Amino acid sequence: MTGWLEAIDRLARERAKAGLTRQLRPRAAGDGVVDLAGNDYLGLSVHPEVVTAAGAALSAFGLGATGSRLVRGTTGPHAELESALAGWLGAESSLVFSSGYLANLAVVRAVGAVCDLVVSDAYNHASLIDGCKISGIRTAVAPHNDPAAVAALLDAHPGRAAVVTESIFSVDGDLAPLAALHEVTSARGALLIVDDAHALGLLGHRGAGGVAAAGLAGLPDVLVTATLSKALGGAGGVVAGPAAFIRHLVDTGRTFIYDTAPPPAVVAGVLAAVRVAADADDRRAVLTARGAEIAARLRSAGYPVPDPAAGVLSVPAPGPEAAVAWAADCRDRGVAVGCFRPPSTPDGSSRLRLTLNAGVDGADFARALNVIVECAP
Amino acid sequence: MTGWLEAIDRLARERAKAGLTRQLRPRAAGDGVVDLAGNDYLGLSVHPEVVTAAGAALSAFGLGATGSRLVRGTTGPHAELESALAGWLGAESSLVFSSGYLANLAVVRAVGAVCDLVVSDAYNHASLIDGCKISGIRTAVAPHNDPAAVAALLDAHPGRAAVVTESIFSVDGDLAPLAALHEVTSARGALLIVDDAHALGLLGHRGAGGVAAAGLAGLPDVLVTATLSKALGGAGGVVAGPAAFIRHLVDTGRTFIYDTAPPPAVVAGVLAAVRVAADADDRRAVLTARGAEIAARLRSAGYPVPDPAAGVLSVPAPGPEAAVAWAADCRDRGVAVGCFRPPSTPDGSSRLRLTLNAGVDGADFARALNVIVECAP
Ligand SMILES: Cc1ncc(COP(=O)(O)O)c(C=O)c1O
Ligand SMILES: Cc1ncc(COP(=O)(O)O)c(C=O)c1O
Repeated sequence: MTGWLEAIDRLARERAKAGLTRQLRPRAAGDGVVDLAGNDYLGLSVHPEVVTAAGAALSAFGLGATGSRLVRGTTGPHAELESALAGWLGAESSLVFSSGYLANLAVVRAVGAVCDLVVSDAYNHASLIDGCKISGIRTAVAPHNDPAAVAALLDAHPGRAAVVTESIFSVDGDLAPLAALHEVTSARGALLIVDDAHALGLLGHRGAGGVAAAGLAGLPDVLVTATLSKALGGAGGVVAGPAAFIRHLVDTGRTFIYDTAPPPAVVAGVLAAVRVAADADDRRAVLTARGAEIAARLRSAGYPVPDPAAGVLSVPAPGPEAAVAWAADCRDRGVAVGCFRPPSTPDGSSRLRLTLNAGVDGADFARALNVIVECAP
Repeated sequence: MTGWLEAIDRLARERAKAGLTRQLRPRAAGDGVVDLAGNDYLGLSVHPEVVTAAGAALSAFGLGATGSRLVRGTTGPHAELESALAGWLGAESSLVFSSGYLANLAVVRAVGAVCDLVVSDAYNHASLIDGCKISGIRTAVAPHNDPAAVAALLDAHPGRAAVVTESIFSVDGDLAPLAALHEVTSARGALLIVDDAHALGLLGHRGAGGVAAAGLAGLPDVLVTATLSKALGGAGGVVAGPAAFIRHLVDTGRTFIYDTAPPPAVVAGVLAAVRVAADADDRRAVLTARGAEIAARLRSAGYPVPDPAAGVLSVPAPGPEAAVAWAADCRDRGVAVGCFRPPSTPDGSSRLRLTLNAGVDGADFARALNVIVECAP
């Protein structure tokens, strides 16, 4: 048996040969880079009300939560955030986690108490896939955005099932057919779990999300998860749904019970962000306009992209090397964009991933648009 | 098929009948409650240098990290924290995660690339158990703190294995026989993974942790995980080990790649906490003295507890109702203590769980001690 570090090194060489080595790059505060890569859709991570609220809670409580909520108690910001999120999303109740990842692990595992099949969209996020795995429930992967295929899988299953999907998919930015999926699930006594991470704050009345926009808010057979780290500009995750299910999570959710609560300062900042986001129709209008503008510019440059459904734009590149070079050229000219190559793309194609950010200054956005088009392969 | 919420309600009634309902209680800032329940061992969550550093980074960067490190870059605080932690722990390299839970999921899954068996201590934390589950590697549960049993499991296995243990166990506060375990693993070409969550900042030279205290720091076949939410008073997790393994996590660790980076403000606060903790022999001396004092008081009250190995003291109670009443009486008199009953206790017994906190004022600690003894059943 060779040494384990030699085995690790061999895997690293294989990844390097396949072009799968990932690079961590430095980011300086105030570096002037225009962010069209992150998920700060509404620019709230630097909103004065958010920063001030976080700072006040930092002074009042100190930095960490110092334990799980069950051991150390629920601070005012935690309780207020949970009722604000439930109200905003139109759900009966909600529970906050330290990350969206851990929220997703919790919700899929929890439905395992009453379901014996999970139907998971083929393009679902890693955290949902891991949730299926950790739940131990039998998992069927459904073709992407295909309610008829979901119906067939449910019809073939005698017990109770849960269907898991994102609303806006994180890589391509397309929107799941949520109303059609809910018709399929509700007709068959199945649950619908929607990860609203990339639609919360962007879609729906007052930004209440993709589930709300589809008219499914507050339904007793719909569970919503989201992260607090994207349009809300903070960190953490949330599960929203019927109060009885939220109580089930408090009693049995391992990633709630055995995890330190998110810091009061972060929670207080996110609470301020919820209030700003609900009133931010102006910022949402900026996003919509920017999405249309960027898509039009790319189309006239020969890239056939649709207007984005929310804040993510996926631009096909001729190949993996071209995608990497495109993103690198943008970065060299001060514009941060995402770049996805196989096997990180669900369909095996290479692309640029652009995200909209209402916090980016108008002149910077215009310059960034020029840079992206000028650097196109 | 009954409705799913009826099924959820039925489970809730079963839990209530078994006394397994969990209660979230409010916690107010500055409520004067003496905390002997949380994990803020050194009192650093409210240390002025920690709070000031977090506040400065909040002003510089805003609240959230706005994306994963691979997409949004590595801020100065993230890079500095990783080199500070590696230096403190005596490891070649380290990688920060948004929670200790996600760090543990990452490390166990990652060793699956080069191991085909995990040997996991029977009393390991939920996050390590979930790590085994999510890794898909065959898992053998070893009797608690039993190097001979671990050796037998390894001897029966032809391939490469990893042994996973906590250093200070979270419920009972006992210390794993780390040096003996390492003798067993190193003689058999196995890896040793140690979750140092409850020893970091408490044991070892300058608080470098249980692995350092056992003389195992920096060994190429030892991986260390820890949370940044206990003695460091913040939030987040870390994996420390050989640089090649850390690179493997950057390239393949799903809970690193697909998770938003911890907020720069939290990271900057934890960085300050590392510096304070390394110089905090005075606080560690207070902890040792308090541990001895509380154990002596409990022994003279008829509770045969040993001096704590670090910051956790486990006090046997006559039964589950007595444990609950004891904790409730303490709480009513302004002292927060933990209470563990089956099935949350690994050995099926009920107990009070007391944690030491060097940040608690001396007079408050003395009063809390009296309260605990006076409320004893
Ligand atoms: C769709 C989706 N779900 C969940 C997550 C995880 O959320 P968090 O970063 O808060 O862990 C992400 C990204 O981070 C995501 O894109
Ligand atoms: C031993 C141990 N490992 C890991 C964790 C998880 O760390 P975190 O709370 O940072 O997720 C905890 C407790 O929270 C713990 O006690």
